[in-house]
Amino acid sequence: MRSIIPNALTALNLVFGVFAIISAYHGQFLQAGTLIFAAMIADGLDGRVARYFGVSGDFGKELDSLCDLVSFGVAPGFLAYVLVLNELGFIGMAIAALFATCGALRLARFNVNVGIVKGYFMGLPIPAAGCVIATFIMTGLKPQGIWFPIMMSIVALLMVSTIRYPDFKGKGEPIRLIPAILTLALAAYLIYTFRQINLFIPFFSFALFGILNTAFALFDKSNS
Amino acid sequence: MRSIIPNALTALNLVFGVFAIISAYHGQFLQAGTLIFAAMIADGLDGRVARYFGVSGDFGKELDSLCDLVSFGVAPGFLAYVLVLNELGFIGMAIAALFATCGALRLARFNVNVGIVKGYFMGLPIPAAGCVIATFIMTGLKPQGIWFPIMMSIVALLMVSTIRYPDFKGKGEPIRLIPAILTLALAAYLIYTFRQINLFIPFFSFALFGILNTAFALFDKSNS
Repeated sequence: MRSIIPNALTALNLVFGVFAIISAYHGQFLQAGTLIFAAMIADGLDGRVARYFGVSGDFGKELDSLCDLVSFGVAPGFLAYVLVLNELGFIGMAIAALFATCGALRLARFNVNVGIVKGYFMGLPIPAAGCVIATFIMTGLKPQGIWFPIMMSIVALLMVSTIRYPDFKGKGEPIRLIPAILTLALAAYLIYTFRQINLFIPFFSFALFGILNTAFALFDKSNS
Repeated sequence: MRSIIPNALTALNLVFGVFAIISAYHGQFLQAGTLIFAAMIADGLDGRVARYFGVSGDFGKELDSLCDLVSFGVAPGFLAYVLVLNELGFIGMAIAALFATCGALRLARFNVNVGIVKGYFMGLPIPAAGCVIATFIMTGLKPQGIWFPIMMSIVALLMVSTIRYPDFKGKGEPIRLIPAILTLALAAYLIYTFRQINLFIPFFSFALFGILNTAFALFDKSNS
């Protein structure tokens, strides 16, 4: 019965995701973004609570993946569609569907490789990808032109890439100095530009850091 | 490489689901319902194609569940919300989220019990549940009053119930005569009332048949 608490948190993740879709439908973009971020908090808690109670199991893991696709794949895709992608017509629909599809492929690959990929994340984790989009929209900036659809497509493809992201558990993929400095410098520049600290900056920085860190790792290998 | 074909069909299921959500947003309810039905066709094909090519695997199964939740849990819930549930305010949002949540619980239970539950489906399968809602909306009837939200809640709870549905593979749960006759009689009455044969009738009949068949099985047991 103690497994009800973590599974309720996982279900809450999904409920926040569905509510985010409905908020986007009503044009409440800040609320939709906040709900996606709240879903990430619930998603971060459920695994920890399950381990604390010693009730981690297959049911909880299956449920977790299912809810993640809705909250961090479908909801951000739909939110972006309602806010800006709809101006592109069918291409906008295709980008929203691409985002969700890459999220589903990422989750399925993660579940199959859970015993193989250890010490790092292969590809940008879907909660981070969803929150890059959600927290950008939370800044209140109305994106103009073609760069937002391009960013959305790149974030989608990062999920299914083989770029290695640190899992911050102290082992596995090393965090290299130059990529870390470059990312922090850009983050500082963004804080200066926005004239505020917002939630978009850490998610964007994490997505960028993985690219730089993996690029420098390839450079190291080709030198040695 | 041959596994690309069934996985592409599964992804198509998800793309149809996302497009259904976007169609509902644009108020194109018939198109949204048709896309959910098309997602069910793609979903029915992927497993068969995978077995035909001999490429059934864990990746495909994980992907399948993920896409099913979007197309048959979230999309019908959102479609129903935009069409009618929004009139109920927060209760309408809660019913849409309940539908998706029951779908997620159903899929997670199915994946965990795949080696235990054999010869029948435990609870209404999520593609059938999603298509009960989608095909009802495809009839073009604008539901009035409280009965549509009630039907939606019952269909959601049928998914997480332990009611046994036949899987039409010729073994497992027997199809009892009286429930079959009652269901066919009601289907005939519905065809007479609607003055047309529509897709809602088979899905509704299937959902109803499981309830009657299981009720009669309990009656048989208590008699013997």
